[in-house]
Amino acid sequence: MSANRLSDFISEDVGEGDITSNTLLGDETGKAHITANEECIMAGLEEAALIFIELGLRTVLHAKDGHKVQEGQEVLVVEGRLKDVLLGERLALNFMMRMSGIATETRNIVDACGKVRPGVKIAATRKTTPGFRFYEKKAVRLGGGDPHRYGLDDGILIKDNHLAIVGSVTEAVRRAKAYSFSKKVEVEVEDLEEAEEAAKAGADIIMLDNMDPDMAGKCYQEIKRIDGRIIVEASGGMTPETAPLYANCADVISIGWITHSARSVQFSLHII
Amino acid sequence: MSANRLSDFISEDVGEGDITSNTLLGDETGKAHITANEECIMAGLEEAALIFIELGLRTVLHAKDGHKVQEGQEVLVVEGRLKDVLLGERLALNFMMRMSGIATETRNIVDACGKVRPGVKIAATRKTTPGFRFYEKKAVRLGGGDPHRYGLDDGILIKDNHLAIVGSVTEAVRRAKAYSFSKKVEVEVEDLEEAEEAAKAGADIIMLDNMDPDMAGKCYQEIKRIDGRIIVEASGGMTPETAPLYANCADVISIGWITHSARSVQFSLHII
Amino acid sequence: MSANRLSDFISEDVGEGDITSNTLLGDETGKAHITANEECIMAGLEEAALIFIELGLRTVLHAKDGHKVQEGQEVLVVEGRLKDVLLGERLALNFMMRMSGIATETRNIVDACGKVRPGVKIAATRKTTPGFRFYEKKAVRLGGGDPHRYGLDDGILIKDNHLAIVGSVTEAVRRAKAYSFSKKVEVEVEDLEEAEEAAKAGADIIMLDNMDPDMAGKCYQEIKRIDGRIIVEASGGMTPETAPLYANCADVISIGWITHSARSVQFSLHII
Amino acid sequence: MSANRLSDFISEDVGEGDITSNTLLGDETGKAHITANEECIMAGLEEAALIFIELGLRTVLHAKDGHKVQEGQEVLVVEGRLKDVLLGERLALNFMMRMSGIATETRNIVDACGKVRPGVKIAATRKTTPGFRFYEKKAVRLGGGDPHRYGLDDGILIKDNHLAIVGSVTEAVRRAKAYSFSKKVEVEVEDLEEAEEAAKAGADIIMLDNMDPDMAGKCYQEIKRIDGRIIVEASGGMTPETAPLYANCADVISIGWITHSARSVQFSLHII
Amino acid sequence: MSANRLSDFISEDVGEGDITSNTLLGDETGKAHITANEECIMAGLEEAALIFIELGLRTVLHAKDGHKVQEGQEVLVVEGRLKDVLLGERLALNFMMRMSGIATETRNIVDACGKVRPGVKIAATRKTTPGFRFYEKKAVRLGGGDPHRYGLDDGILIKDNHLAIVGSVTEAVRRAKAYSFSKKVEVEVEDLEEAEEAAKAGADIIMLDNMDPDMAGKCYQEIKRIDGRIIVEASGGMTPETAPLYANCADVISIGWITHSARSVQFSLHII
Amino acid sequence: MSANRLSDFISEDVGEGDITSNTLLGDETGKAHITANEECIMAGLEEAALIFIELGLRTVLHAKDGHKVQEGQEVLVVEGRLKDVLLGERLALNFMMRMSGIATETRNIVDACGKVRPGVKIAATRKTTPGFRFYEKKAVRLGGGDPHRYGLDDGILIKDNHLAIVGSVTEAVRRAKAYSFSKKVEVEVEDLEEAEEAAKAGADIIMLDNMDPDMAGKCYQEIKRIDGRIIVEASGGMTPETAPLYANCADVISIGWITHSARSVQFSLHII
Repeated sequence: MSANRLSDFISEDVGEGDITSNTLLGDETGKAHITANEECIMAGLEEAALIFIELGLRTVLHAKDGHKVQEGQEVLVVEGRLKDVLLGERLALNFMMRMSGIATETRNIVDACGKVRPGVKIAATRKTTPGFRFYEKKAVRLGGGDPHRYGLDDGILIKDNHLAIVGSVTEAVRRAKAYSFSKKVEVEVEDLEEAEEAAKAGADIIMLDNMDPDMAGKCYQEIKRIDGRIIVEASGGMTPETAPLYANCADVISIGWITHSARSVQFSLHII
Repeated sequence: MSANRLSDFISEDVGEGDITSNTLLGDETGKAHITANEECIMAGLEEAALIFIELGLRTVLHAKDGHKVQEGQEVLVVEGRLKDVLLGERLALNFMMRMSGIATETRNIVDACGKVRPGVKIAATRKTTPGFRFYEKKAVRLGGGDPHRYGLDDGILIKDNHLAIVGSVTEAVRRAKAYSFSKKVEVEVEDLEEAEEAAKAGADIIMLDNMDPDMAGKCYQEIKRIDGRIIVEASGGMTPETAPLYANCADVISIGWITHSARSVQFSLHII
Repeated sequence: MSANRLSDFISEDVGEGDITSNTLLGDETGKAHITANEECIMAGLEEAALIFIELGLRTVLHAKDGHKVQEGQEVLVVEGRLKDVLLGERLALNFMMRMSGIATETRNIVDACGKVRPGVKIAATRKTTPGFRFYEKKAVRLGGGDPHRYGLDDGILIKDNHLAIVGSVTEAVRRAKAYSFSKKVEVEVEDLEEAEEAAKAGADIIMLDNMDPDMAGKCYQEIKRIDGRIIVEASGGMTPETAPLYANCADVISIGWITHSARSVQFSLHII
Repeated sequence: MSANRLSDFISEDVGEGDITSNTLLGDETGKAHITANEECIMAGLEEAALIFIELGLRTVLHAKDGHKVQEGQEVLVVEGRLKDVLLGERLALNFMMRMSGIATETRNIVDACGKVRPGVKIAATRKTTPGFRFYEKKAVRLGGGDPHRYGLDDGILIKDNHLAIVGSVTEAVRRAKAYSFSKKVEVEVEDLEEAEEAAKAGADIIMLDNMDPDMAGKCYQEIKRIDGRIIVEASGGMTPETAPLYANCADVISIGWITHSARSVQFSLHII
Repeated sequence: MSANRLSDFISEDVGEGDITSNTLLGDETGKAHITANEECIMAGLEEAALIFIELGLRTVLHAKDGHKVQEGQEVLVVEGRLKDVLLGERLALNFMMRMSGIATETRNIVDACGKVRPGVKIAATRKTTPGFRFYEKKAVRLGGGDPHRYGLDDGILIKDNHLAIVGSVTEAVRRAKAYSFSKKVEVEVEDLEEAEEAAKAGADIIMLDNMDPDMAGKCYQEIKRIDGRIIVEASGGMTPETAPLYANCADVISIGWITHSARSVQFSLHII
Repeated sequence: MSANRLSDFISEDVGEGDITSNTLLGDETGKAHITANEECIMAGLEEAALIFIELGLRTVLHAKDGHKVQEGQEVLVVEGRLKDVLLGERLALNFMMRMSGIATETRNIVDACGKVRPGVKIAATRKTTPGFRFYEKKAVRLGGGDPHRYGLDDGILIKDNHLAIVGSVTEAVRRAKAYSFSKKVEVEVEDLEEAEEAAKAGADIIMLDNMDPDMAGKCYQEIKRIDGRIIVEASGGMTPETAPLYANCADVISIGWITHSARSVQFSLHII
């Protein structure tokens, strides 16, 4: 599983071999430190360590995924043949910089929304980088968010395109509930009327799609009035700025931005 | 090659199957349009089309990778079984949104630097998403940039860590030139003294690492004085804001930001 | 996805090539018929056709997966180079025989339990042949059953071993519900007391593990009394004989037997 | 080879991760015992241990593949992080239950036929589960049977469909013997006449296909009369009940039933 | 199978893309001819055509694998986008040059030995290029030779190292014959005594290892005297020069030289 | 990377298992020695050791890749379960024999050309065995040669077919230099006129294709006169005999012969 995947990622960067190190280095050994260039929520440290271990190196962790690290903090020490350290350097840093970027932004939004209403959840979407979803979702979790669906096989989510074909929210929910006893049924709705219909049809989760906070608030009230157990999710074009505006009208705010547009965090490796 | 890889990416999103569509849809056929939600440099359109073709659908392209598209412009029409359209929708959009984001930012920086000095090149780095480098580099090219090295086997680039071990710029360049007649030798330098030494040692490309524009300018002048054919590259923590400041003191500006922190561009798919 | 997997399965049987046909046959073409040697619920026909198509042959289907076929009924006609027909013959038949065996047994149990109480569901377990789960679960669906979890990532199911470590049903359910808003929480219980605790803790599904029908009946009543929406699943050592005894004390009966011990159905291929 | 394959099988069950254990467990360590729920010929124990080892656990074997184990006998102890024990539990048990089922049935038939005539061999066919043939054939060997051909590249076996195209047993055998000096030539025959022809043509093995024991006996006598070294194999729709009827008219009885319809044996894992 | 493998081979040569053609060519289409630069036995033509087809090109064959082609003869015409022709050129030629080299040498030796004694067979060994055995064995077949074992699973061959451990030819043959009814048993012998023992023990094939022609002749006579059906194979350091010396003292001469040291045949591709 | 690839190569030889050793051997342990049967430049020893290590054996190296070994010299000792030694024997020897053959021939040509003019380089081409290029190029390096391009993505090399389409050497070089700042531009020329044009256009490397030594000498003089830094490569149908004739008219001689037609070196393994 992950160990396996890591060797594929190593191949992407190494190809036929590191021609610079092969030219210049022998079997010198030594130590290298990785430090954070800015404050962030750490993520990808476990993967970075596994990459170096896969390359035959020893590692010592000085931080923990999911925790905050300070600017300048040393997070990982790697020891062994320097040629191998340089072989894994870029990939390890690439994991850390992107995953920490996502974890940090997730935490920021979780905190910002939590100030408006404690307990509101932040969730990712499937707007991820092709081939790297597992790690991006993991970073969301490390930042305090919920990964939501990993793929099309991982939950029933009835969207506008499905409804257009089926023709009725009620019928779509009915069929979905009959299809599987073990999956929750989520429906995306566009307006108050659809929200009501979905709630009455027995949806487990209702996603308010692309509504302004006012309309979302009305739907939220109405859904909860019909059945307080239904989970309400707000979604659609959320940014770090707009997400908190929905904290009072949703149990969950899903936000593609955290995986598709989060800025990376910088780390650097130094050989001592 | 790419066709092969695309089916792996499809598997990531589809897993055991689309349980929502399997529940709700039959073999209905129809058409879907993909439109750009904002002005951008198009990229990933070829991949999007190949994904739908892999799923047995027909496609018509209304835009061309590398060209500008307008907000609201229709870029792709897909036709066939709607279940299969929904199967490929998210992945196709994920390719387009990330690749177009990179291409658009690249073009912006190329234009901004080109205003300062026409002809200066913008290059990517290896700070890419693990597993997705090929497509991110391609997006850079489509935006008018240079992909630079695809991996450690794709060019000799002597960095500070190599120099620390070898002990001398001159010796490192000498060994690298002896190692391969067919590769250019690039050296990363930290100051004017190293820049001079690298130029005299016969480096083909000299990378000015993390210098301020002033210092970079001095190194540039000195290197060109020693040998006007040497290519000078400026690198290190560049952003869209700082890159143009180096346009007068480098032939090439390399900037990890375009692949690791570019914002995605939004597209959406509608079934007609 | 499936097309891809099929070529791996073909490789398993073909290896370096069919040395018998290579010795004896040229490029003769012709037709072959596949017929069912006994009455059954058809399954695996789609896969059989895809195998022959992958080998460059044309196919015509005379039956439909999920429907009943009669003894002696022709279900598939294959046309093309006979060498290629023989290349795919055994694999196609192996898919059909095992999948139809599972579908047929599933349907038998669905019918037998449905006679006791209409609407009771039959579900599979993860007791499948390593590497072939997708197709075994699909056969269960074709027989009218529910595939249940495809893997450990496909639903939260708190078992006795988890409870032993966590120490409390209530705490385990609480943690699981906090962990994910989009997944149902299922708990396996051993007795009435645990069943009550799980129901009160808010479990979405409660699995009665290895109970006799009497005890299962008592748990079922009690759970439904606490919350009528909770789904009750009976499980543990079910056979075609014992399953109907639980039809009145469960909404779902899960039964590993249908995937691990169902007898295969015989089909044969004849060249005309 | 096998180690490699095992990680693929693990992926099938684990997917993106065990969401239940990830929610509920930390790094607790402990021991787990696997016991046989019924008397059987052990098989799959080696694979089960390798699965747990692949997951970083320690194992101690208390039984041996190919030997008989008693109901309730402990066969394997696993020690390490309990999360990892649960990760491998189902797959390990799936290997054991199916392989032991096959080994046990094979041994039963070997014994039953051996009572009729000591030394008669029981062989498998290619009627195996797609993707799992290697392990099913291995289980047959552990039960005292012969795996027969692993695939179409693993022996020349001239069947009715080949004969129909070539037109003559004699010619088919001649070509096959000319094609390869290192492979035995086996021919499937339908009646006494074909059996005689095959024997005279120099076949190394003659398979009596779908004959009743009487007819098979006559063919056996005649073949042995022509050349006592020819091996006679009886095949076609054999069951545990019918196989012994052929023990006096064949050197080898091949029986697809042992791989396609054998009942699984139950094992269970308990954490102490 | 082979189609699959071909795309892996294409990846080896193409990597991230043909940077020369990508720079210089657009979508120009045209025709290219491949011609043989020397007389040879054609092999690899089928693979060459499949490579071009995989790349989306049309092909017309003007020669046939296994037949002789003349110096300067056109063997294949390819038509389509020239960029794609250049993409497949080197790989297609590499297949043809190595496979034709092997086929041609095999044919030469078959002919030379056939002049000494018609019907003597030439066989390959497992001394092949790692990863390319299938095609090298196929080339041997096209040249009129026998591929012999494809791998360790493809025949029982008892060698000196086995005998050293088992301790006795008779015992080794006995065990091997008991192990499998469907495989021939081959034994490698070092002298006349071992040859006699192997023949009496019932070996199907006896390999005379590294003997001079005299000794080989004596063993051959003795073996045939004991049992005329036993196949005698001569092996060990054979070259095109020495092989014919063994034609009178073996039924089969196996010769690693044809796969590990045959000279390649030159072909070239020209765009018209 | 390489470890991964090695297991694929092992699979090619082992398939479903070593049926001879499985029949005859138990868990006997011991030592085996590998010795060189002739003087050569050692190559493939590292790979041989890794193969045995992958199979769970211990290894001790008595030689070093790239160094000369004597006839009869012991180069590797392997220790462990003998069954596993025999499992890896052939593959390890196949690596050593082919790689050492290439390294030895490369060294011979390097030495022969070096006698004519010290410092002239010998380079490989892409005329390699499909799937084994990495190891053949590595053997060239171990013999003192230069691997040249690993694939079409590894350098710009403008050939006659490109020039025919683009229409002008000058234009082709201009485009290539504009395309990438980091790659050298190499051009293949057919005559003096093209050589001059390429030199003036700014090519970094000029390949003299299929010229006789006289013509090559004239081109060399002219190119160096125009720009002494340009590297001149002679290529086309070189053999060990003809290569030295070009030592005075090229900086680099590239020669496909060393990878496509070098004779293998013999090694053998003995169990003690």
